[in-house]
Amino acid sequence: MELKGDYKMTYKNYDRETYLNSFKEIMKLKPQVEKYIDDAFEKGVDNLVMAGVGGSISIMMPMEYFAKKRTAMPVYMENAAELVLGINKAITEKSLVVLYSESGTTKEAIAAAEYCREKGIPTIGVSGNEEAPLQKLLTYPIVCGAGDELSCDGDHMKLFLIVSAILHKNGDMDDYDEFMENLAKLPEALANIKEEVDEEAKAYAYQIKDEPYHMLVGSGNLWGSTYCFAMCYLEEMQWIRTKSIESPEFFHGTLELLEEDTSIMIFKGEDETRMLTERVENFAKKISKKVKVIDTKEYEAEGIAEKYRGDLSPAFLEAYLGRLTAHLEDATGHSLDIRRYYRVMDY
Amino acid sequence: MELKGDYKMTYKNYDRETYLNSFKEIMKLKPQVEKYIDDAFEKGVDNLVMAGVGGSISIMMPMEYFAKKRTAMPVYMENAAELVLGINKAITEKSLVVLYSESGTTKEAIAAAEYCREKGIPTIGVSGNEEAPLQKLLTYPIVCGAGDELSCDGDHMKLFLIVSAILHKNGDMDDYDEFMENLAKLPEALANIKEEVDEEAKAYAYQIKDEPYHMLVGSGNLWGSTYCFAMCYLEEMQWIRTKSIESPEFFHGTLELLEEDTSIMIFKGEDETRMLTERVENFAKKISKKVKVIDTKEYEAEGIAEKYRGDLSPAFLEAYLGRLTAHLEDATGHSLDIRRYYRVMDY
Repeated sequence: MELKGDYKMTYKNYDRETYLNSFKEIMKLKPQVEKYIDDAFEKGVDNLVMAGVGGSISIMMPMEYFAKKRTAMPVYMENAAELVLGINKAITEKSLVVLYSESGTTKEAIAAAEYCREKGIPTIGVSGNEEAPLQKLLTYPIVCGAGDELSCDGDHMKLFLIVSAILHKNGDMDDYDEFMENLAKLPEALANIKEEVDEEAKAYAYQIKDEPYHMLVGSGNLWGSTYCFAMCYLEEMQWIRTKSIESPEFFHGTLELLEEDTSIMIFKGEDETRMLTERVENFAKKISKKVKVIDTKEYEAEGIAEKYRGDLSPAFLEAYLGRLTAHLEDATGHSLDIRRYYRVMDY
Repeated sequence: MELKGDYKMTYKNYDRETYLNSFKEIMKLKPQVEKYIDDAFEKGVDNLVMAGVGGSISIMMPMEYFAKKRTAMPVYMENAAELVLGINKAITEKSLVVLYSESGTTKEAIAAAEYCREKGIPTIGVSGNEEAPLQKLLTYPIVCGAGDELSCDGDHMKLFLIVSAILHKNGDMDDYDEFMENLAKLPEALANIKEEVDEEAKAYAYQIKDEPYHMLVGSGNLWGSTYCFAMCYLEEMQWIRTKSIESPEFFHGTLELLEEDTSIMIFKGEDETRMLTERVENFAKKISKKVKVIDTKEYEAEGIAEKYRGDLSPAFLEAYLGRLTAHLEDATGHSLDIRRYYRVMDY
């Protein structure tokens, strides 16, 4: 995952007004998204495909959960690098492929868009600026650079707009308007969470700054963030070893490595799988003295209806992780921008 | 993943005759499987669901690849612990759910079978003995204990029988008879591979016996084995830290951690994604002096037609890994049977 270089905020990369103004841009995409989806469905959509790699596939994972819960229409998650190999026979001109690349220059996303264009498979995609090479290749191009460089809450918001419009059009989301009203309130709720957790996230960042290895555990619609925070933030940007593992999977191997001094981060959300993560929490607390639980239920998220907390908890978690990332950079003294190899070396 | 306690072979857990006799049992399931599938399709099958946890979900991953390549019928992979939460709306009485539990006592598999029975969702499943609690809960129960306790090649063979019969019945596998002929030759091919690689696997086991951490990388239909070998064998049975990562994902984070003395195992198969893994191999060899490539293409696999090598390479890889596991136990002096927590402690 890349960072936007010229995006600077005070309060260690955060300023409420800047954040809110930026995030409010996202809801302005709604009419454009709806028009695109109307057009796609007029031509026929049999299944929904989300394709990405690294950060972008992980931000789509909660969307897969969101969609599968609401529709019997097939939903496929594909690695963009595999999509272009044409392995999945169900992907045809009647599919609708969602792509995402903040920079609009990710090799795999561009290759996927080119592949789909050649095969006549419609694509809807987002990138941060109009000049991005990805833009020219998409059937339904969307430009929106709004977001927090240190977390994926903005990405989730953009994808919720797209996936909800698809579900609504397919007849699977009677509460579309209500969900949209809640989505519009998300920026305020996220800003509140960021401010609420900032001190605590800072303390935790300093507490873990010298840990050489973390286990990260999450389930359901928090799995994407669990996977991404481990790989994109801790591994890529901080060069710290991790093992990310889904809550139910933890008990089939990784648990054996947990010892008193093993650091483990547990991401606890509000979807149907919450008890699977609680099971890990209960176990971990018996063994390790370095258990960190980030529980989205503790965040007020003003303005968000109870019924949507489960859907939106991935964004709540990301609001926390954005603060953690900001402080971790200071605590470790390891800039988030340096890379040994990624976009530095040819491979 | 559990081990069968009373399964002892000479030649460090391997004896050709025992192995062949055991594996030939698997093909005897063919008429029973076909009868089951005929019955299921008479009642109607709209989609295929494979559900498991830990070892069992990882052995199903190559089957998802195998199926998606051949059919446009929706194929879903579900964690058994999540299946019972009823999240995926596409799973109905018109689904066919494949379950697997060698012992037939895995909590999550039993819960999934119970859930499906309550909801009227048909299940086909395999366990190792008739008395297994899972057996009584399945719509289509299959008993087969044949396999190698140290690898998943036997599990793959059983699942290939089931998934191929489903694809054939659905009109997606014109070459069913030809594939079955090849499958029948698999035990001999695997025995040959085991003997061919044994010395080399032993040498590698002794070479890595003191490594505290391994990266494991694989793609496509080898991903399941990559994930499983890391979690079930290295982590659970050997208490060695790992990070398993899909080849295209490696470049979006984990690569930054690779240094000259980082151990990395690269599993290279023969499916469409081979070049994605080769890309990791090329990169890794520039950085690390501890790169191990296990390339199934190097194995003769006598009797297996060229056109099926890609499909069957997960079993080829497992033949190697079975030998590696056997020797690793000796090399590290850490028995594969001891656990700190799994089935030792309540959680």
